[in-house]
Amino acid sequence: MNFCTECGAQVVQRIPDLDDRLRHVCVACGMIHYQNPKVIVGLLPTWQGKVLLCKRAIEPRLGKWTLPAGFMENGEAAEQGARRETMEEAGAAIAQTYIYREFDIPAINQIYLFYRGEMASADFCAGVESLEVALFDEADIPWHELAFPVMSDILAEYFEDRRSGVFGMRSGEPNYLVLAT
Amino acid sequence: MNFCTECGAQVVQRIPDLDDRLRHVCVACGMIHYQNPKVIVGLLPTWQGKVLLCKRAIEPRLGKWTLPAGFMENGEAAEQGARRETMEEAGAAIAQTYIYREFDIPAINQIYLFYRGEMASADFCAGVESLEVALFDEADIPWHELAFPVMSDILAEYFEDRRSGVFGMRSGEPNYLVLAT
Repeated sequence: MNFCTECGAQVVQRIPDLDDRLRHVCVACGMIHYQNPKVIVGLLPTWQGKVLLCKRAIEPRLGKWTLPAGFMENGEAAEQGARRETMEEAGAAIAQTYIYREFDIPAINQIYLFYRGEMASADFCAGVESLEVALFDEADIPWHELAFPVMSDILAEYFEDRRSGVFGMRSGEPNYLVLAT
Repeated sequence: MNFCTECGAQVVQRIPDLDDRLRHVCVACGMIHYQNPKVIVGLLPTWQGKVLLCKRAIEPRLGKWTLPAGFMENGEAAEQGARRETMEEAGAAIAQTYIYREFDIPAINQIYLFYRGEMASADFCAGVESLEVALFDEADIPWHELAFPVMSDILAEYFEDRRSGVFGMRSGEPNYLVLAT
């Protein structure tokens, strides 16, 4: 960040009064420009025992498989954002959803909130950000062709939970320390 | 937003290619400035059946009671942020934490993630943003002096869960539609 969004003057990094960390502060109008983590909302759609995955049509990880997910938008609730991404990327509507997983990736200032839910029908289709969308049995999950470590984590946890019959909310950093970008 | 953070030129609002909503876009360098919800992380600290609350020393809602909470910072995990706010505002260390509540307030582009946990000891003290910090039995909670509706919600849900013995993760918009600012 080089310039103030409000007045266009230069910003410098300094620690404001009563604060304890460097912020971008405008030299002219004094505005403090806080930077905070971004929320990625996603969904694990299921249909009669299978899981719906999307093959990415965009970078990063073009051609790799992922669960529908994307940046939460202003003006929406997290669950609403997860449903929106699922419709945009996979053309799938979901019946009841359940909050399921929170992941932190502090190294890249991201926090993921994942829901799970059975699809409202067998309908799905590839959105503009997907090359292909398909339902997978556990045995057929393309583990080595998944786009991001958080996707491997949540899928592995989901199948583990399904065997135990208990779908508890999980929270924290992913098992894999590889970055998601 | 009036000016580009990177080059200082003017920004205009337009819908970028392959997008479906207005974004701030720089007329000179073309950078798209996405704006996304901010995460507030908080904690419901307990000690031997009581709940720890802070009386706010800052606006908004100066003089009203709240659970420790604040904006999640870049470079931290959500649970780590909730612990940080609890230490800053209430001088309290927490033993084991559990993710407990997700609230959406889309009207003001905020998402809240609350944890709960027993304090590591009986020690606490007012931080610079608190006038006073105190432990409350359920019967003594200052319901009409709470700072924000989400605080009433999570406290009511907590006591309800404590009676049932089941502390399930809850997610969604608050029961009260009053805004939190």
